Order: sequence, then structure tokens, then C-alpha cells
Amino acid sequence: MNGAETLLRTLMNAGVDTCFANPGTSEMHFVAALDRVRGMRPVLGLFEGVVAGAADGYARMADKPAATLFHLGPGLGNGLSQLHNAMRARTPVVNVVGEHATWHRQYETPLASDVEAYARPVSGWLRTCASPRLLAADTRAAVKAAYGPPGQIASLILPADCSWGEADDPAPPVQRPRRPSVDPAALEAVARVLGSGEPVVMLMNGAAVRADGLHAASRIAATTGATVLADTFTARLERGAGRSPIQRFPRYPDQGAALLREARHLVLVETVPPVGFFAYPDQPSWLTPESCAIHTLAAPGDDAVAALEALCDMLGAREDSASIQPLAVPEPATGELSPESVGQSVAALLPEHAIVADEAVTSRGGLPEATAGCPPHDWLSLTGGALGGGLPMAIGAAVACPDRQVLCLQADGAGMYNVQSLWTMARERLDTTVVVYANRSYRILHNEFQRLGLGEVGESARQLMNIGDPDLDWVSLATGMGVEAHRIETIEAFNTHFAAAMREPGPRLLEVVL
Amino acid sequence: MNGAETLLRTLMNAGVDTCFANPGTSEMHFVAALDRVRGMRPVLGLFEGVVAGAADGYARMADKPAATLFHLGPGLGNGLSQLHNAMRARTPVVNVVGEHATWHRQYETPLASDVEAYARPVSGWLRTCASPRLLAADTRAAVKAAYGPPGQIASLILPADCSWGEADDPAPPVQRPRRPSVDPAALEAVARVLGSGEPVVMLMNGAAVRADGLHAASRIAATTGATVLADTFTARLERGAGRSPIQRFPRYPDQGAALLREARHLVLVETVPPVGFFAYPDQPSWLTPESCAIHTLAAPGDDAVAALEALCDMLGAREDSASIQPLAVPEPATGELSPESVGQSVAALLPEHAIVADEAVTSRGGLPEATAGCPPHDWLSLTGGALGGGLPMAIGAAVACPDRQVLCLQADGAGMYNVQSLWTMARERLDTTVVVYANRSYRILHNEFQRLGLGEVGESARQLMNIGDPDLDWVSLATGMGVEAHRIETIEAFNTHFAAAMREPGPRLLEVVL
Repeated sequence: MNGAETLLRTLMNAGVDTCFANPGTSEMHFVAALDRVRGMRPVLGLFEGVVAGAADGYARMADKPAATLFHLGPGLGNGLSQLHNAMRARTPVVNVVGEHATWHRQYETPLASDVEAYARPVSGWLRTCASPRLLAADTRAAVKAAYGPPGQIASLILPADCSWGEADDPAPPVQRPRRPSVDPAALEAVARVLGSGEPVVMLMNGAAVRADGLHAASRIAATTGATVLADTFTARLERGAGRSPIQRFPRYPDQGAALLREARHLVLVETVPPVGFFAYPDQPSWLTPESCAIHTLAAPGDDAVAALEALCDMLGAREDSASIQPLAVPEPATGELSPESVGQSVAALLPEHAIVADEAVTSRGGLPEATAGCPPHDWLSLTGGALGGGLPMAIGAAVACPDRQVLCLQADGAGMYNVQSLWTMARERLDTTVVVYANRSYRILHNEFQRLGLGEVGESARQLMNIGDPDLDWVSLATGMGVEAHRIETIEAFNTHFAAAMREPGPRLLEVVL
Repeated sequence: MNGAETLLRTLMNAGVDTCFANPGTSEMHFVAALDRVRGMRPVLGLFEGVVAGAADGYARMADKPAATLFHLGPGLGNGLSQLHNAMRARTPVVNVVGEHATWHRQYETPLASDVEAYARPVSGWLRTCASPRLLAADTRAAVKAAYGPPGQIASLILPADCSWGEADDPAPPVQRPRRPSVDPAALEAVARVLGSGEPVVMLMNGAAVRADGLHAASRIAATTGATVLADTFTARLERGAGRSPIQRFPRYPDQGAALLREARHLVLVETVPPVGFFAYPDQPSWLTPESCAIHTLAAPGDDAVAALEALCDMLGAREDSASIQPLAVPEPATGELSPESVGQSVAALLPEHAIVADEAVTSRGGLPEATAGCPPHDWLSLTGGALGGGLPMAIGAAVACPDRQVLCLQADGAGMYNVQSLWTMARERLDTTVVVYANRSYRILHNEFQRLGLGEVGESARQLMNIGDPDLDWVSLATGMGVEAHRIETIEAFNTHFAAAMREPGPRLLEVVL
């Protein structure tokens, strides 16, 4: 058995059965081995950002890593921004990067590159395989490392001769690691703080913002008066009817600082202290006041849900004290086509267990609020701020959950970064519905320009912040990649086409012209 | 004057007057300053690969660097593969990367990233500005470093507070550096080798493959019997009628080794010894036989043209001994539509001083041979092997040379990597004609699969090497980004539309269905 086959069989033994790939010559033995290893699903991306973002979305929903396959340093380079988002989401990824044969790396060939240097900014674990004899063990170590906890990107660099050389048998299955329990002393300390009557803000992310964690946190809030918030960006938030709702920490630093002004205690649950997304000349980046003590209940990857439930017991927070979101589904909107009316109509029609991949940036109006009472659904955010995550995350989520409807809320500017994603949606016949908010500008840059006090936007600046002239025609773009698409200019048309998209399988794109 | 304005004015003083950009919030002061600095042309790319590849194509034709503008590590990450190609072409690039304000970098914000780590794999020079007071000097140093010689990527990382802080005056102009003269001893040694009567192969790249260098090398070949070759991939090859033609070193290692088998001397002119592009299990990567001595006439960046002309004098190579390509323009093809007939028709219609951005990979049939006798033109190759360079290089070349026709030969698979380039062609109304060879597969991977002896392509492998199902519709893709496009299914249609594209201004795309 050659190295590539051992690698693939080791992945399969570990339950890693999906590989998002954009291969090149140095990966041909890996590609050939796919034909000999039953059950490994290869998914092609026409660009590496698609591959990386899909691996992120997949693992957020599957709760296990996918493998990637990249071609040398430059191929990996194309995937880095979406791996950055995955890193910030603490997503497990087994990141396989092909490399020249060991003896070939010394030469100045066109594609010679320092693959480790490319991988380092996003990798929590990084190893270059030195021999096909080591590949089974290296692959197993990569899967273990990817799981964490917390999840991380484990980059296994695979020289071509390690792929084609004779290898040992595949490695045995990897036990999915347990999350470490929270230290009883930390529990005691936080229980004291919550029982003190002083103002407490509890900020949560990771597993804490799924149903069980939210439920426990809501009991704590009801019992103690603590303010419970989710981070501005979360990897996967479970919400909707029957779940405990949660507000997000505000995005802008002045709003964040205002929220924390009266707090005497900040309790962190799988997150770090809040700071501004960007710096501004006259505003502090660090938002926690001096007078506010910081307590870590659970570090990222710790068993936060068990800790929150233990706190409930310690504080006597009754099971029925949790706030539960009632089902509240509006009628489809009428009147003007706007982000608000689109939000209402989405809320009217969003099916149970939908997955929302949210990269609407500035465009989605009140959609999160409008959908708060929809049937239960999952919400995936752009955790690392690197544009282009929406479409590929939707791919990954749809591959992980073929029985669920995936809705991608996509700003037009951000959607262009990995626009090739549409082709993979068509190729794999994924049940993804993409709503493009076409406002013809990097609206967020206009907002930031104003927040920074830069005054009037002149002609050169306008050139860099508007993406009209020419307008993108998303219907043509989608059609060109095999995805059925419709231009939406009235709310009635949106209602009709969105309902059809929810009802019928396969990918669809609706370009909402704003 | 703030830092951003000093930076821009320093660039202008140095003759750097074009900025390919994809900015974000941390670059807003740079964007605002563009409105205050006359003459700096901002060109927006909707994806960073477009920005990087355009900067590469621009400098290859302008013989001076453009500036880029990227947004933090992940934004730069998206540009790395095309910067890799630029690095291999020894293209000068002033690579400006925005970064969080200095005091903000310590925090774990969504976009926090080690920008230097991202930049390192492609940068010959790398500096993070530490204060707006240093920005004028840092910018000047970056321009000097970019020039080399040889040209390189000079990455200047620009924290937001260095951009918005009060800065000193712009730095004075940068003298374009002279290429170092070749050591007389090296000249003597190579002259002796060339005069020895033993078999010599002279391999050239850089300035040596422009008109003057080719002419001198041709005189040397005629006088001494040496075999003169260009590297397989060259940044910019000047060719066509009136110039001295040159063959390229073959791509595959078995062919390269065969070519060098009888050579007793290998003379390097702005290049390194040839090695295989990829490794193969049973073939050597290093192609120069033990019995062949290696002599460096000119290292990359040295004054190779002066050295070749000095050799002519030393060897008594007469001015009129050079081989000169006669004008030889075929009629437009008739018959079947094929890569060969397309090549003939392109040759029939290619205008004088056209610039060919070549990323046709496996598809272009005999086009290079067919166009050998066309009016003089320039040929830009994919120097670093990172797919996606064709379209953005065409942008850069067209921005650098607005009076010249740019022809992009584009394989369909490779064209998808930076497909967003089409929008910039439309936005800037560039005179670019894109010929897409639509074969619906990564044909090169099929070739490599066979070369590696991997036998029959199975279903999983086919999934990763074919890009049909669904077929890409390049006419829709181009139209969606504002570029007029035509599907070509007969050679007559090609002749009509290609002639119109050569005649009329503005971008056009022809999808040749193979």
C-alpha cells in the first residue's frame, strides 16, 4: 500500500470521510488512491478559498473535521484567508498540503516554496512528513491535533514521494477527545460572583452557544440577573423557537464599552475579553473597564456546558426559569423590496433545521431579529473577518447535512471573493439557497470611512469603495456556473422564488437588487 | 500631512503612479489620501489575486513597480500565489499591506494576524513601519528594494496609526539602480568556452530574452555553434518579425535531460541550472550531466545584455550574423475549430506590439509556433506555476501599455482562479482580448496522471480532474462582469470575432469550445 492510500485509510478509520480538494501534479497519487478507498467523498473546488471555507463550514456542522487537499505553498496561500476564519472559529481541519518530493525541494523550480512558512499563520499543528513509513502515524497525529479541544487546523505537509512510496498499514481509529472539565475552584469563584448581586456580564462562544449551553446560561441569567451575551461572531449559534435566545456583543467599540461601563464582573465562557474589531484614532481598543474584574469560567475547548449546568445547581437556578423563545413566524412581507422586507419574508418561510451561513455584512437589515422566532435553526458567522466565507461555508454545511436546507446570506462585494463556490454547489447538487444583497458597494467601507471622520468621499476613494460601473450581474454569474438564478426586484418576486427554493432541492441564487 | 499622504507622495516622487488595491477598514486613510494626491491611479480588484497578478503584469511591461494595497494578513494571503509568480519573474512590486494600529495588534481580534509571516514567503524585502515619522524613509527604501536588481517584492506593512498619524515630508526621488556589470573574468571564461569548439548550451532569462539580448545571443550562436535557449518560462520574451528567435528549454525532465546529454558546457545568463518542474519517481530532477561544466555569465539582475554584446566583440561575432525572424503572417484558418486553427487565425490577425499573457497551459496547440513570424510582440509566461496568472497579468499589461492590444490565452480551469479579473477589465475599459480554451478539464492533470504511470482514471479521480458537470459558461461569466463575450464553435466565428476584438477598443472574451 502506498503512502497516499495509508493516509486515506487512516483518515477513514478516524471518521474523516470528506475531502475538499484542489489538487495538482504533486498530489496525483493521493487522487489516484481515492479510487481505491471506498467511502471517502472528494469534493472539488475550482479555487482553494472554496476548499478551505467549505472545510470550515463542514466541521462546524458535522462536529468532526474534513480533510483538505492543496497544491504546494501557493495553492495553500489561496486558502489561507478562509483557514484564518476557520482558525478563529476553532474549527477542526485536517489540512493536507502536497509538496514536491523530498529530494526535489532543494531546487529552484517554479513552484518551489516554503510550505511550512505558508501554513504557519493558521496552523495549530504543523508537520512535514519525512517518509512514507511515518505517514500513518503522522496522519493519525494530525486528526488528533485537529480535534483539540479546542478544534484547530492541523497541517500535514505531504511530499510526493511520501505519497507514492511504500507505506505501513493504516493507523488505528482516533478516540474523539473529551473536553476537559472546568476546575472546581473556577466554578466556585464564578458562582460567588454571580451570587454577589453585583452587575455581571457573561460572554459566551463555542459549545456554550449551542442549545444546552444557552439553556443553562439563561437559567443563570434569570436567577442572578446577570447579562448573558454571545460574542459578536460565533462559529455556530443554535437559535429559534424552543431555544433560549441570546443577544450578541455589539460590533463597534463605543457600543461595547458602553455596554460594559457598569459591569463589575466579566465572566468568560469559551472566549476572550472583548476588544474592538478595528482600532480608531480616539477610541480605546480594550473595552473592559478597570473596575470590572475578569473571570474565566471555561477556556475555549473546556467543557463549558457541564460548567454552566453545574453553576445552575450551585445557584439553585430552576430548570423552568430559562427564557424559551416561542414560535413566532410572520407572514411574508408585502410593499417595498428592502433588507427589512426580505428579512420578514425569510422569517416567514425558513424551514425547521435550516442552516444560515451569514456573510451579509452590512446588508441584511433586521433579518436576525425577524428570524428569532423561526423554527430551530443554526447560524454560522464570519468569525475571522476575512471576506469570502459565506458561499464556501454554505457548501461545507450542505455536504455535512444533506437533509437540511442551507441559506447563504451574501453581500455582493464579499460574495465575489470565492464566487467559484457556486460551481461546486451545482456540481454536488447541494440544497443551498443564496440570497445576494446587491447594493453595488463595499458599504462597510463607506461606514468605516465615516466612523474614521474622513469626511467627503472623493473620486479616487469612490473608485475603491463602489463596485458598480459595471454592475455585477449575479444571475449571469450563477447561470455561468450551473446554478439556477433569479433577479429579484419586488418583494412579491422574492416571496415566490424564495418559497420555491425552500421547497425544491438543489442550489438556487436570488439576486436582491437594492 | 498624514502618513498615508507622505507614503503616496513618496511613491509618486519615485515614479510609482499606479496602485492595484483591495482595501479594508485599516486602509481607509490610504484610500482617503488618494483623493489628495494627483496622478496616482487606483485600480480596484474584487479579489486580491487580481491585485497581485495585475501588479506583476504591470511591472513586466512598465519596467517599474506598481504599488499594491492589501488588507491585513488574510487579504495578503489571497494575493500570495500571484505574488509567488511575480517573485519567480523577478518582478518589482511595492507591496503595501495594511495592518491594525500598533497598539491594537496585541489583541485577539477577528482579523489579528502575523502579517510579516504571511509576507515572508514571497518578499525579498520586508519591513513593518513603526511610526508615521519613519514612513517616508520606509517607503523610499521599499521602492529601492523593489527595483533590486533583480526586481523583487518589497513588502511594507502599514499599521493604521502610521497611516493616520502626522508624518514628515515625502522622501526625495529614487534613482533607478543600474544593473551591475559582469565581472571581466567571467566574460573571459565564457568567451574561452564558447571558442573551444566543445558543445555549449546557453540558457537565458531576464533582460537577455528581450530584443537586444536575443540579438547578441543569436550572433554568438551563429559564430560559435552554441545552442541558445530561453528558460521554459520567462517573465517577458520579445519576439516576432525583426527579432532574433529563440527556442525554449523543454518542460519535461526527460526532454530536458536529452537536450543536455551531449553538452560539455552550460552557460547561464540571468538564470539558474535547469531542473524538472515536478519530480517523478524514476527520473532525476537535476538535468545537467556530470560531464557538463556550469558557467554563470550573468546572475539575475546583472547587466546581461552588455555582457552578451561584449562577448560578441571578443568572439568577433558579426552584427549581420544574427538570425532575424522574417515577417510571416498566415491567412486566417478555415476548416475545423481546433487549438491549431485558432493558433493560425491568431497569427493572421495579431497586431504589432501586442502583448500576449499566456496561461493556456495545455491548450494552445501550435500557437507559439504559428505566431513566430507575426509583427513584433511581447510574451508573458506563468513564471511561478501558480494557476490564475493569465487574466490579472493581462490587466496589468493593459494598464501599463494603454496603446497596445493585450491578448490573454487562457485555459478554462486556470482561468477560474482569478475570474474576478474580468470585472476590472470592464471597469477600467482595458483593451484586453481573452481567448478561453474551454476543454472542461484540468487537462494537465490528466497528462501528469499518465506520466506518473497511474493507469486508468477512476470515478473519484475523474471528479477531481474534470471540470465539466456542469460546464462553465464563460459567456455568462464574462457578461455578468460587464465584458462582451461570444461563444465560438466554428473557426469562421472565431475569425470574425477575433478580428473585431483586435479592431475595437475595450475588453472582449471569446470562449473557444473544444
